[in-house]
Amino acid sequence: MSEGRPLLGVTMGDPSGTGPEIAVKALIRDDVCAVCRSIVIGDAAVMRQAARIVGAPVPVVAVESIEQAGHAGDSIEVLDLHNVNLDRLVFGKVDAMCGQAAYECVVKAAELALSGKVGAIVTSALHKEAMNLAGHDFPGHTELLAHLCGVKGTVMMLVAGTFRVSHVSTHVSLRDAIDRVKKDRILHVTRLTVDAVRRMGVAEPRVALAGLNPHSGEGGMFGHEEELEIRPAAAEGLSEGMGLVGPIPPDTVFYRMKRGEYDAVVAMYHDQGHIPTKVLAFDEGVNVTLGLPIIRTSVDHGTAFGKAGKGTARPDSMIAALKLAADMARQR
Amino acid sequence: MSEGRPLLGVTMGDPSGTGPEIAVKALIRDDVCAVCRSIVIGDAAVMRQAARIVGAPVPVVAVESIEQAGHAGDSIEVLDLHNVNLDRLVFGKVDAMCGQAAYECVVKAAELALSGKVGAIVTSALHKEAMNLAGHDFPGHTELLAHLCGVKGTVMMLVAGTFRVSHVSTHVSLRDAIDRVKKDRILHVTRLTVDAVRRMGVAEPRVALAGLNPHSGEGGMFGHEEELEIRPAAAEGLSEGMGLVGPIPPDTVFYRMKRGEYDAVVAMYHDQGHIPTKVLAFDEGVNVTLGLPIIRTSVDHGTAFGKAGKGTARPDSMIAALKLAADMARQR
Repeated sequence: MSEGRPLLGVTMGDPSGTGPEIAVKALIRDDVCAVCRSIVIGDAAVMRQAARIVGAPVPVVAVESIEQAGHAGDSIEVLDLHNVNLDRLVFGKVDAMCGQAAYECVVKAAELALSGKVGAIVTSALHKEAMNLAGHDFPGHTELLAHLCGVKGTVMMLVAGTFRVSHVSTHVSLRDAIDRVKKDRILHVTRLTVDAVRRMGVAEPRVALAGLNPHSGEGGMFGHEEELEIRPAAAEGLSEGMGLVGPIPPDTVFYRMKRGEYDAVVAMYHDQGHIPTKVLAFDEGVNVTLGLPIIRTSVDHGTAFGKAGKGTARPDSMIAALKLAADMARQR
Repeated sequence: MSEGRPLLGVTMGDPSGTGPEIAVKALIRDDVCAVCRSIVIGDAAVMRQAARIVGAPVPVVAVESIEQAGHAGDSIEVLDLHNVNLDRLVFGKVDAMCGQAAYECVVKAAELALSGKVGAIVTSALHKEAMNLAGHDFPGHTELLAHLCGVKGTVMMLVAGTFRVSHVSTHVSLRDAIDRVKKDRILHVTRLTVDAVRRMGVAEPRVALAGLNPHSGEGGMFGHEEELEIRPAAAEGLSEGMGLVGPIPPDTVFYRMKRGEYDAVVAMYHDQGHIPTKVLAFDEGVNVTLGLPIIRTSVDHGTAFGKAGKGTARPDSMIAALKLAADMARQR
């Protein structure tokens, strides 16, 4: 059976946040164990504490190398990086020790994925400010991973079941986002989107490109990006054999995907894609990074410092991230 | 009983579209009749044909003036404008005769509302191009009504149950929409929003102002409109006694309203508000025009020319528009 269940590397995330507890809650579930094997990359003492907090019925077992892990399913195995001093750990605090630990988990996870020792990585939330305090000056998790993998041009996809949205831009102002709505960029995002949706098990993805302006510009009355950039991108994508439509008016394209017409939408800016995904599936969304040489899914929430140590944080997004990573690793 | 049920003027809409059929379907419903009295403003022959198409169990009765209407509830009464030649009517066709008829219905409805003869108007879809063909050069329904009422600065609100979104701008390019995110304009929209939500029966509306940029600009890292315009608008609104919060990140504010935290959100641009409303309630949304001296609700869809004459168009939005207009007219 284990051959059919890909091995996933799960990062602990910032130890002062809810990441460790959420990881434990997700990894002990039968429906998760049924589709993957897993190893947590983190600090074993932190993970033991998290298991106590959530009342996990299985032990946390530390291993010093991935080769030592047995993946028998009767424990949570942790590749122990010994990088947190539990006596100094304070829940909900921005702390360089924690930022460093979270950083090291990502570095190790990327290394394992790049060398093929895990089939995919699933990341817990890290705290950007804590990571920066530790001297690692990345704008976020994804940028760190792109750096570790030596690539540029990664793309953010949100996935909630069969509702999938990738983004032409993410963390830039809306004004800058408009400037990034360019044919080549749209085409790059679309190609990665089609590829990712195939890996999610859809043989012939139907992808819609959203318009940028209200009513897709209504024939040029309110904006020209649709005619100058988006339609040409759709035409070129079609000529490459992708199953594309668009531009489709932004206020109907997501409803049409929800109704089953498309397998993914290419959103022209961050909130165009985030607003419908979060309003439909706030807790179950998964963040997938496209354009890396490895498979990476992630929880779609932050460290939730206010809930850390209480055992109350919801694992829904982590569960969905694990299942999706398993799916993608298997298809690969 | 009739005193408690406000009288609504319902426009027929473009006769070659689905408006007449939808109006009949909605007006014969017990749940609609329970909350309002109504008079259709249109062509009686068109409405009779629509009643035949949908198999309405009550007759269509023409009246020549609103004073003649009995509002007994055992018929659909039409203030007959005699403005459609049924022999020339073709379903699904952009036609000046139809554009003229739809236009005249709106003019008459506004006149009745301005003189207090109806408590509110509820408008069916008209076809902009047909209206323009008839020589009435308005960008849309709302602009025509603003002109008839002699006002400027109307605001579009979408309502789906307790999910209410008003818009700082609507039919302009996204780039122009950003330029319109200005303190005074936001404050104007917010005041109208608070007033409208009160008329919808919420004594102390809790209103959230959405941010413009991803994560509301993340402290100025991706955009400054939040600090320069939206936060000052919220502060000024608070000082006027309104129950405001904001700016709230665009990708969470709608989820939070859905969860019940707010009674309305002020969206900074068309799609910011339209995307979540349509993805949650595509068929049941109502369009409300704020800033008119009369109450006006409208269906939130077009003429659906492709479905005209078939009796299959869904009346959900019209039903919701009638109920909301009744609510607002009663509160007034």
